[in-house]
Amino acid sequence: MSEKRTIGILGGAGQEGSGLAVRWAAAGHDVLIGSRDRARAETAAAELTALLPGGTIRGVDNAEAAHAAEIVVLTVPYAVQQATALAAAESLRGKILIDVTAPLAPPKVGTVQLPAGGSAVVALQQALGPDVTVVAAFQNISAHHLRDLDHVMDCDVLVSTDSAEAAEAVIALVADAGMKGWHAGPLANSAAAEALTSVMITLNRKYKISGAGIRITGGAGH
Amino acid sequence: MSEKRTIGILGGAGQEGSGLAVRWAAAGHDVLIGSRDRARAETAAAELTALLPGGTIRGVDNAEAAHAAEIVVLTVPYAVQQATALAAAESLRGKILIDVTAPLAPPKVGTVQLPAGGSAVVALQQALGPDVTVVAAFQNISAHHLRDLDHVMDCDVLVSTDSAEAAEAVIALVADAGMKGWHAGPLANSAAAEALTSVMITLNRKYKISGAGIRITGGAGH
Repeated sequence: MSEKRTIGILGGAGQEGSGLAVRWAAAGHDVLIGSRDRARAETAAAELTALLPGGTIRGVDNAEAAHAAEIVVLTVPYAVQQATALAAAESLRGKILIDVTAPLAPPKVGTVQLPAGGSAVVALQQALGPDVTVVAAFQNISAHHLRDLDHVMDCDVLVSTDSAEAAEAVIALVADAGMKGWHAGPLANSAAAEALTSVMITLNRKYKISGAGIRITGGAGH
Repeated sequence: MSEKRTIGILGGAGQEGSGLAVRWAAAGHDVLIGSRDRARAETAAAELTALLPGGTIRGVDNAEAAHAAEIVVLTVPYAVQQATALAAAESLRGKILIDVTAPLAPPKVGTVQLPAGGSAVVALQQALGPDVTVVAAFQNISAHHLRDLDHVMDCDVLVSTDSAEAAEAVIALVADAGMKGWHAGPLANSAAAEALTSVMITLNRKYKISGAGIRITGGAGH
């Protein structure tokens, strides 16, 4: 694993947050999953801890997860993305916030419908201001495969951020979760990964794939 | 190969159009490359024909390429995308127009800068009206590998269109060019592939890749 981190996952009782929690805890990180409802987080944490070969995932409320963590991860539906992050804004200062949000617009979640400005994550960075280093990642992974530690993740992760240092830290966490991360450019490039989420949903439906993802080709080793 | 087609490539003297021309002519299609400058198209066509194991690529002007073809392909810079297609609009009626345009905004071509509305190809469809079936494809392939017929293309192609019939025809042409095509959803989903173009440019630079592409994972055979 990379340097041991304390990671707080806001919305971590949901499917994607839970999956990341399992992978990172199994890799040796100290993981807290947060929820609006502390009891729900505690229940989920107990279930996820049972999947681990060792160690513990703790369930807390979102405020405590943000406060206690060195690196915070936002895994909530788009509708509450900004509200959830802004409620924790004081605790996020000086930290990396990994935002996995894709701006899906139900009911047509298979159709790309990017917000004005092009990226939901860029909009969050603007709302939080420069004291928080927002990094976009993990939008295109198959959440239900994550919590199965025996499943080899067959996809890459695009990491978009304006900070080279944050890119390095997040790419290390991608590796700890069993995938290859690529620094895909500035935070604005998150628009590509956000839009791809709807494409992946479409491919899952049209081609009966259980969890479509992407790999980058053309590089060394290919 | 799929059903033999007459394919006209507007801007076909450029790198991507030339590469597609070589692949499709080698697969047995009848290919015309068009240019604003007919002499330039004729010179390029002669050079490309020399790369073929047999057959001929013809060089004409864009107007003739659009007029003579059953399926038209638009491979010009974003700055002249609409003007080039609109100049040929009468010839495009009732046909499929494959648009490979990515809305790159120099000098920052590695940064996603989608147009208002999200997609340059959707904007073109709106400008051309419903008589032309616009299909977005081929935005994320490595053009300089295409014309080398010995090079096995290591990437997939996202095909975005509102027409299931057009998707089928274009996916067959993707296969004839040596790649796997996926119907990625409605034309609006072109925004994902358009945005990915800047990500691919960034990855080529950051990771010294000669032609980054993507493959879809999670499907049968993976």
